[in-house]
Amino acid sequence: METASKVDLAERLNPRIVEQVLVAFLQDETRNAGFERAVLGLSGGVDSAVCAALAVRALGPENVLGVMLPHRTSAPQSLADAEQVAAALKMKTELVDISPMVDPFLESRKVTDRVRAGNVMARQRMIVLYDLSQRDRALVFGTSNKTELLLGYGTLFGDMACAINPLGDLYKTQVWQLARALGLPQQVVDKKPSADLWAGQTDEGEMGFSYANVDRLLYLMVDERRNGAELRTAGFADTFVHQVRGLVRRNQFKRRPPLIAKVSHRTVNVDFRYARDWGI
Amino acid sequence: METASKVDLAERLNPRIVEQVLVAFLQDETRNAGFERAVLGLSGGVDSAVCAALAVRALGPENVLGVMLPHRTSAPQSLADAEQVAAALKMKTELVDISPMVDPFLESRKVTDRVRAGNVMARQRMIVLYDLSQRDRALVFGTSNKTELLLGYGTLFGDMACAINPLGDLYKTQVWQLARALGLPQQVVDKKPSADLWAGQTDEGEMGFSYANVDRLLYLMVDERRNGAELRTAGFADTFVHQVRGLVRRNQFKRRPPLIAKVSHRTVNVDFRYARDWGI
Repeated sequence: METASKVDLAERLNPRIVEQVLVAFLQDETRNAGFERAVLGLSGGVDSAVCAALAVRALGPENVLGVMLPHRTSAPQSLADAEQVAAALKMKTELVDISPMVDPFLESRKVTDRVRAGNVMARQRMIVLYDLSQRDRALVFGTSNKTELLLGYGTLFGDMACAINPLGDLYKTQVWQLARALGLPQQVVDKKPSADLWAGQTDEGEMGFSYANVDRLLYLMVDERRNGAELRTAGFADTFVHQVRGLVRRNQFKRRPPLIAKVSHRTVNVDFRYARDWGI
Repeated sequence: METASKVDLAERLNPRIVEQVLVAFLQDETRNAGFERAVLGLSGGVDSAVCAALAVRALGPENVLGVMLPHRTSAPQSLADAEQVAAALKMKTELVDISPMVDPFLESRKVTDRVRAGNVMARQRMIVLYDLSQRDRALVFGTSNKTELLLGYGTLFGDMACAINPLGDLYKTQVWQLARALGLPQQVVDKKPSADLWAGQTDEGEMGFSYANVDRLLYLMVDERRNGAELRTAGFADTFVHQVRGLVRRNQFKRRPPLIAKVSHRTVNVDFRYARDWGI
């Protein structure tokens, strides 16, 4: 019997099939929503590169706009990587420096805390993407992966904001696997993941654990519904399990729509949710 | 037998009971989320006034921050009305002019379309509110009413963004009724509703129908699930029913979280949603 500690997420992912499913998803949902075009932020990281590659396969390179949204504090390498991805995929790009929008805010509000500043930047990028979406009649494709969504490692109404998201059910380690299968630039696949919100930031440094470890744990917890005893047997320390469980629970609010006080028989997002349920 | 055309939403609302329910909702959900304070945008309109009044009753005036977020194009009367509401409720306020953040964007991006500009402003206000939420450890209370949510009359990730919303299950006509019962300033209750995104804008002028009419129709459609023949009998023209039904359907995306491509057994917002369902 396979022991939990040997779970290898890569073995469980067939990249060719997943690619087909995700390309079909983007095609169908874009057209169902009445759109033909997509817009997405191109950060130079692996998630947006994979999303862009899937978008180009789904809609054609002429229908996908990759937007580079650097701040003056962003690493120049990020922009170079984004450009390399766009060139490899032959997609259209647009460059929007967010500094002139972000800096007046940070200065006038005296924001020095880097997490607060990072959230402002992530949300300013959302504003640009949604404005381009309106200008071009293009859907905003999201790039948050399952690890980020479960841990709440992202900015609500910022990088987590999108119309449809092809990556939200793939752990980061699976995104890497898919990136390799899609033939994306090696530099982008191999570099340390970072939100690039301040110099030297890396996801793993900030979170305090590796994607390899947390993805294995999340897979067992969430996908396989293993209990505490089983996770211990699988080799995970109780403190790590406790920490990750806490993150998943505390960040539930980022994964759901705003909570509405129910005072009628049919409340938005409670009992008024599905097209098939409308009868209107 | 009561005919549908005589449906009076006001008769169906007991403002004292609704007030109690909503105050308890804000109290419970704020504490459940681990917070003691709230922050909300105070526009000078009736929705944010009602939300503020409920928030003050739920958490005490010292724990509620009302934020005025004018743009240089906003009507001065809006700010005066917001100040009057805050004074009546004895709540704390903060004034943040969004022009220095919005204008560089509109200028550099050459945005002249007033709907696009309005969305940028609504989202910039969200950024400020969420930054203050982080600074003060305060929950963002939302002010979208049921009419707006159903018709999609609001900016996604802008004024529709919040943690919890006490008004989302009340039609606009019910918000007015509650506002009167709460003793809010007459000027705020009586003025024509407007998003104040450009001079002379009124909700009813922009939508092309009155809240009184559309609320009666939505109530019959959504809450009472009446069919087309019944709506016709109730005196609603087919063209109006068709128009409103179209708005409700087309704006479904604003009421739900981003759509995630499902490739695993447990997908965020599909089969991984509820705390009771986690088993982690």
